[in-house]
Order: sequence, then C-alpha cells, then structure tokens
Amino acid sequence: MNGADLLCETLLANDVDVCFANPGTSEMHFVAALDRRPRMRCVLGLFEGVVTGAADGYARMTGRPAATLLHLGPGLANGLANLHNARRAASPVVNIVGDHASHHLALDAPLTSDIESLARPMSHWVHRIGSAGAIGEDTARAIEAARAEPGRIATLILPADAAWNAVAGVAVPKARPRPPASPDPARVARAAQALRSGGETVILLSGKALRAGPLATAGRIARATGARLMAQQSNARIERGAGRVAVERVPYRVDQALAAFAPVGRVILVGARAPVAFFAYPGKPGGMLPPACEVIAMTTEDDDLALAVEMLAGALDLPRDLDAGAARRGEAALPRGALTPEAIARALARLMPENAIVCDESVTSGRDFFRHTEGAAPHDFLQLSGGAIGVGLPLALGAAIACPDRKVVLLQADGSGMYTLQALWTQAREAADVVTIVFANRRYAILHAELRAVGAGAAGRNAGRMLDLDDPELDWVRLAGGMGVEAARAETAEAFADLLAAALARRGPFLIEAVLQGGDRG
Amino acid sequence: MNGADLLCETLLANDVDVCFANPGTSEMHFVAALDRRPRMRCVLGLFEGVVTGAADGYARMTGRPAATLLHLGPGLANGLANLHNARRAASPVVNIVGDHASHHLALDAPLTSDIESLARPMSHWVHRIGSAGAIGEDTARAIEAARAEPGRIATLILPADAAWNAVAGVAVPKARPRPPASPDPARVARAAQALRSGGETVILLSGKALRAGPLATAGRIARATGARLMAQQSNARIERGAGRVAVERVPYRVDQALAAFAPVGRVILVGARAPVAFFAYPGKPGGMLPPACEVIAMTTEDDDLALAVEMLAGALDLPRDLDAGAARRGEAALPRGALTPEAIARALARLMPENAIVCDESVTSGRDFFRHTEGAAPHDFLQLSGGAIGVGLPLALGAAIACPDRKVVLLQADGSGMYTLQALWTQAREAADVVTIVFANRRYAILHAELRAVGAGAAGRNAGRMLDLDDPELDWVRLAGGMGVEAARAETAEAFADLLAAALARRGPFLIEAVLQGGDRG
Repeated sequence: MNGADLLCETLLANDVDVCFANPGTSEMHFVAALDRRPRMRCVLGLFEGVVTGAADGYARMTGRPAATLLHLGPGLANGLANLHNARRAASPVVNIVGDHASHHLALDAPLTSDIESLARPMSHWVHRIGSAGAIGEDTARAIEAARAEPGRIATLILPADAAWNAVAGVAVPKARPRPPASPDPARVARAAQALRSGGETVILLSGKALRAGPLATAGRIARATGARLMAQQSNARIERGAGRVAVERVPYRVDQALAAFAPVGRVILVGARAPVAFFAYPGKPGGMLPPACEVIAMTTEDDDLALAVEMLAGALDLPRDLDAGAARRGEAALPRGALTPEAIARALARLMPENAIVCDESVTSGRDFFRHTEGAAPHDFLQLSGGAIGVGLPLALGAAIACPDRKVVLLQADGSGMYTLQALWTQAREAADVVTIVFANRRYAILHAELRAVGAGAAGRNAGRMLDLDDPELDWVRLAGGMGVEAARAETAEAFADLLAAALARRGPFLIEAVLQGGDRG
Repeated sequence: MNGADLLCETLLANDVDVCFANPGTSEMHFVAALDRRPRMRCVLGLFEGVVTGAADGYARMTGRPAATLLHLGPGLANGLANLHNARRAASPVVNIVGDHASHHLALDAPLTSDIESLARPMSHWVHRIGSAGAIGEDTARAIEAARAEPGRIATLILPADAAWNAVAGVAVPKARPRPPASPDPARVARAAQALRSGGETVILLSGKALRAGPLATAGRIARATGARLMAQQSNARIERGAGRVAVERVPYRVDQALAAFAPVGRVILVGARAPVAFFAYPGKPGGMLPPACEVIAMTTEDDDLALAVEMLAGALDLPRDLDAGAARRGEAALPRGALTPEAIARALARLMPENAIVCDESVTSGRDFFRHTEGAAPHDFLQLSGGAIGVGLPLALGAAIACPDRKVVLLQADGSGMYTLQALWTQAREAADVVTIVFANRRYAILHAELRAVGAGAAGRNAGRMLDLDDPELDWVRLAGGMGVEAARAETAEAFADLLAAALARRGPFLIEAVLQGGDRG
C-alpha cells in the first residue's frame, strides 16, 4: 500500500465516494490507486471549473463533500472561480491538489507555483501533506474541516512522493463528526422579544434555514408576529413551490433593495448577514438597511439553523394549529407567442415535474422564474452564490449525480454558460438527467444595464465589442451536439413549451436554446 | 476626466493599445473610458483563460505588453493558468484587475476575495491602486514592470472608486524604458575559454537567443568549436526552418534527456537554466545533467541575450566567412494513407507558407512536427511554456492579432484544446487568420503513458474514465461551427493535405479535425 492507497481508503471510509477529477502526471499514483477501488465514482471534467462546480452541486444536494482531483497550481487555479462560489454557498468540498514530489520543488520545473497562495482565498483550510505516513490523518482532518458547519472548503496538497511512498501498518482513520452548534437561547429569546414588540420586522433566513421544515416553522412565526420572511438575493438552496412557505429575496438592484428595507425597523438574522449591495456605485450606500434599523444576529456561523428556528417558535409559544401559510398550487397557462423570459418562466411553472432541482445561472433573463413558480410543483432552487459566472452547467451536473432520481432543470444565461460549457460533455458521459435552457440573448445583458447606470449611455464600438455576443452568434445546438448532448432551438413560446415537455418526459441531458426576442434581450 | 480615463490615456501614451478583455460591473467605468478611446483595440474573450493566453501570444510576437481586463478575483483566477504560461514564457503582460470600491471591501460582498494572494504566484509585480490621482503613475510603473527584461507579468488592481473618481491637472506619465542589461564580459570570456578547451560541450539557448540572428551567430560558434546547440524542451518562440540554424531540444522523457546529456562535460547557459525533469519520478533524478558536468551561466536574467551571443563570437575571434550551417530547404513529399501525427507533420513541412507562426499545444501528437520541419519554410515556433494546458487556441489568437499579415498554424491536442475552446469564437469575431489542427486521439494520451510508467499497467475502469475522451466522442467540427469557425474533418492523409492546402490558401479561421488512426492515438 502506498500513500495514494491510504488516501483513497480514508476518503471511502469516511463516505467520500465521488471524485470529480481532472488529473495529470503528478497525480498518476493517485489515479492508479483510484483504479484499484471501483467503489469510488470518478467523474472526469474536461476543465477544472467543471470539476469544482460539480462538487458544489453535489454538496448542496447531499450535504456531503465530494473529493476533487486537481493538477498542481494551474489546475487548482482553473477551479478557483467555482470554489469561490462553493465557499459562498457553504458547500463542503475536499480538494486534492497534486504537486511535484517534495524534492522536485526546489528545481522550479515549469509547472511549479505557490499552491498555498492560490488556495487560501477560496479555502477555509489548506494543508500540505508532509509524508506518506501522514496521509490518513491529514485526509481525515481535511474531511473534518470540510464538514464543519455550515460546510467548508478544505484543500489538501498532495506531493507526488507522499502518494508513491509505501506505508505499512497505518490504520485508516475516521474523521470525527462535526455536528452543528446549539443556538444560544439568550439570542433566541432576544429575537423572540423583538418579534413580540411589533414594528416592521424582517426575518432574514439563509443556509439550511431555507429548507421546507424550517420554512414551515418560520411561516408560522411570521403569521403570528406579522414579520416578513426574506432570503438573501443569492442562496445555495431553497426548498420552494406548492406546499412550502415562500420567501421573498433581497432585490439585486440597490435602489430596489433600499426601498424594500426603508420601512423596516428591525432585522433578525438567521444564518444570514446584514444585506449589502452586490457592487458599489458612486453615491450609493453599500449596506441595504436604514441607519436606524436594529440588527439582531440570532445565530452564529456554525449554529444548527433548523433548531434555531424551532427554538424561536418555542420561545414565542405559537398556537399549535397555526397555519404556516404555504404556497398553494397555481394553475399556470402555457405561454403563447413571443419567446420571452416570462414565457419561459410560465412554461416551467406549468410543466416542471415534482421534486425537480432548478439550478439558476440565468442572470438577468431568469428573474421572472422566481415570482412565477411560487405555486409550481415543489422543487429545490440553487443559485449562483458567489457571483463568479460559470457555475450553472457544472452545478447541474453535480446535482444530477447527487440525485439520480430527480430531474434537474438548468436556467443558463448564454454569456455565463460559455465559461464552463465543457460540462455538457460530462453530462452526456454520465447520462446526467439535466434539461438545460439557454437564455440566448446574445449579450452580457446585465452589463449593458450597468453601462447605462454609470452614465455612459448606450454602448459605442469598444463597449459593444466587450458586451455583445452577436458577432458571430453562438449556436448552442451545435455546441451541445459537439459534446454529445441532444439539443434543439426554440424561437416561440409554443415551440419552447413543446420542447420542454418532450425534454422533461425523457431521461438524460437535453439542451434547449431559447432564442429570446428583441424586446427581451436586455 | 476620471481615473479610468487617466488609466486609458496612460496605456495608450505608452503604446499599450490592445486590450484583451472580459469585463464586469466593477469595471464599467473603465469600459466606458475605453469606449471613448477608439484607438484602443478591445478584444473580448468569452472566458478569461482566452484573455490571458491571447495576451501571451501577442507579447511573444510583438515583444510588447497588451493589457488584460479581468473582473475581480474570480476573473483573475480564470486567467491564472495562462498567466502561468506567460510568466514561464517571459511574456510582458499588464493585467488590469477590477475590484470593488475601497469602501465596499469591508462589507465582504459576494464577489470579494483576496486578489493579491491570487495574483502573486503568477505575477512578478502586484500593486493595488490607492486613489484616482495615483492611477497614471501606477499604470506607468506597471508598464515598466512588464517591460523589464526578458518580459514580466504586472498585475494592477483597480478599485472601482479609483476608476470613477475625478482627476484634474494630472499629467499622463511615460513609462521609463527598461533596456536589457549588458552581459558581463568576464562571464563571456569564461564561456569562450571553456569552448576553446574542447570536450563535449552544449550551448543551451533560451528566450531571445532563439531568434534567427543570434542563432546564426551561435551556429558559427558551434561550427568553430564543435559545441552542440540546444534549446529547452519548451520555448516561448524559436525562429526556425530553412535558412535558419537549427537547434535540438532537451527531450521531454527523463531517460532520453539523461542519455542526451550523459556524454556532456560542460553546459553553457545563455538565458537558460540547467535542465530539469518536467515531473519527478520515483528513483529518477530531477536534474538532467551528469553530476560531473560543469555549468557555466553566461548571462543573468535581464541580460541582452542577442548581444551576449555576439560578444561570445567576438571573444572567440571566429573567422568572418565561417558558415553558420543553416538548415537547407527540404523537399517533403505529401503523405498518403493513414492519418498519423507524422503524416500531419509531413503535410505541414510541404505546405506551410513562408513566415508562418506555428503554435504548438499538441502534447504527444505533435512531437513529429519539430523533426520534420527543420527544412520547411521559415517560421516561428511557439510552445506551451509552462505546462498549464489550455494555451493553444488563445495563443494562436493573440499571435494572429499581433501579426495580421502572417498565417498562424495551431497544432492542438484535443484534451488541452477543450480547456479554452471559447477562443474559437474570438477567432471568428476578429477574423483571426488561424488554421487550427486538432489532433483528435480522443484521450489524454500522455497520461496513459504516465500511468504505464508508474507501473499501474493498462487503465482499468476508473483510470479509463479519467484518461479517455471517447465516450462520447468530441465533434470538433460542430464545436467550431457553434462558435462561427468553419471546420472540416480529415480521416486520411490525403484528405488532410487537401484540407490543409485549402485552409492555408484562404484567410480567416479554419479548423481541421484530424482523426488519428488507432495505432497513432497513444
């Protein structure tokens, strides 16, 4: 047994049994060790952003870390943007980053780089394995670090010699459980007191407080106290749809968010932080709450949020039979005519199957989805959590691997979809049950709006050259076909609804290029 | 005028007039400033690896830095792998990385990250702009840093408020010239003395010593002294082909490199470092020179290498009429039959036009090219310099933008081509005159060899799932077509040669998917 074998054994002994991978020469002993362990499911991404984004999607749906396998500093670098998103989503991930053998580093061979410096900004925990004998304990510690509540990024650097050196008589360690912390009853009592005292109050929920159970409890609290339930603008996962308690989200636009909070005198944070603007703008505040707004942080970062919501309900002594106010099943009509984002939202509201997983990287085009699907079939809603575009296709892949019996629907903007389009190939290879809807507006629509917002007016030649994708037009049907994913184009609402119904009725990946009409391209 | 205007003015005043870009909201004032300056050529990449790889190709062919425009930490992260390659190629690049406004950072908005930690491993120089008023001087310093011999990566972090705040009465500064250092005559004399003393000697050339002029002089030195001329395994740019003095390269495989240097008693380094193995292997040395080999470093890092070679020739007092031993024009026959890497090399040797730029990211499949094209039409040969795959398509794009009157030929492995295939779209948009040859072997062939080398034998299921690209097969004709690049597939040598001739005879991007035959897929 060598160090790589011990690494694999430790992963498997701790239920890390999916490895999203793009290996290279320095990881070849690890690849050979994986080859000896068919229990590990190895999923190849043709680019590391696919690897890390898939690990994020897998973690969001299972609550467990997958391993990633990355090739030295540049391989890690390619995966960093989606690790940034995973970190913001509080997804547990265990990255295995191969490096040169320890004695080779001083030679500064071409692929040498400072892996620690690259890893730290997107990792909560970084460790370089010192020797083959330490691999088991180091791996167990990495898994513990990843499992820490609410979910962390652990990056383990694996020197090639640690992988290839022999180990003997070393036990395969178990990672210690990392249960969430119990919320502080005093904080809960303070929140309860605030809720009893009335006034315009928002309960801002995040993380695991956005699952159906805690939301139902939060709905009862809201009904009893008159508080409003809100979620951050971007959330790792919300359980929503018919039968679930709906939450509104903090608006993306600064002016809208300020207006939403203007009358609010008190915000109770449950897993959330006080809302801030996504970007800064001249003359506008960064914080979205009015200066006089009282902020009550009811939980700490590693608290059990579901328990916190239950404790709050208990402290309020709610009537047992109070209705939570869950959303009722809507009866959306199929859209007709022009293919607009709203038409797509309405078709989805009508056609989505029970228990779908909806991944959203539609940026501007998908904003209609949320409001149209409150009464749709119950579903999970996974968003771009860290703002680093390119998560959609990999996220959907990882969710499909996590939940093979559920249909995944991906709302994908064209500009951000191009970042990690390689994920389509892995979707085809793994027969991932994903319907991808590409919102083809042929531009970075959000940036056109931002350009207008800075007072620069309409885009001239240089700005247009940087914000438009229409010269040449991307052909997503061919791109998908080139990677083995069946695809078709829709240019009307009727054609879209027909394609969507057909795609949802079959299994395996399918892509619909939804060509948006002129008026809805911005 | 705001800070962003001053930044643009400073770039243009210092002949940085191409900006490879993928901007976001935090860079919108910079985009607006670029929009007011049509002299700046803005080239959009649909992924940041395209942006930085193109800047590398541009720098290798012009010797001048382009600017890149990247969106916060994740945008930089996406470009790091090709910055790693650019750094190893000693390409000058000025990265402009947008960040949140200074006062916004403490809010830890979703896209916030530690940009400096991400930038440092792949940058020689990193600086965060402190205020709008400092932008001119900071930009000039960044350009100076990038221009330092032999070429450096300078990363300038641009807070949004520095871009949008007004500046008045600030002059547009000129970057000071950074001429290369003059080689130390004592070092040159020592090298000359060593060459006169005989024995098996290698002159290992790198960087600008691999241009036609210094190579001709080095050829005369070699003829007079019996020394062998060699280049590193991977080189940023070699001027080669008929009429130029040929160099052999250090072999990639450790055993072959050790054998090549076994009889060598002395190595004279001209811009190069002592050769090391690309990767470490159990029981094999990392350095490729025999223990007793004398190493003479004739130059320092910032020396004028062309001058150093001239000084060496002068110190040796070579006869004026000594022939340099340049390669003679070969008369390659067109290949027939099976489509193999060798057939592709022979077709290129026959059909390449004068003065082509050949970019090579063919990994295993392209190794035949080098030996078959010593007597081909003179051309520049640009390699994957840092081992971070995904440089090929962007590098060719950047070279085409640098040299619009020259034909660019790209030798592209399929696995590495998938890393940054988005570059095809920019090739189409910019009508880049690039013929891309995809060596479609449907696998990471190099890794199959490495897996055998670690004694793991043939790939089993898990290893095969990580090293093969054949399920499903990639269809490069559709992928290229999806991004607006004409493409066709060749499965025989004759068909390939016909397609190549046709592609070379027209202008603009064209892709040939060369489907390699079974025996030549590894």
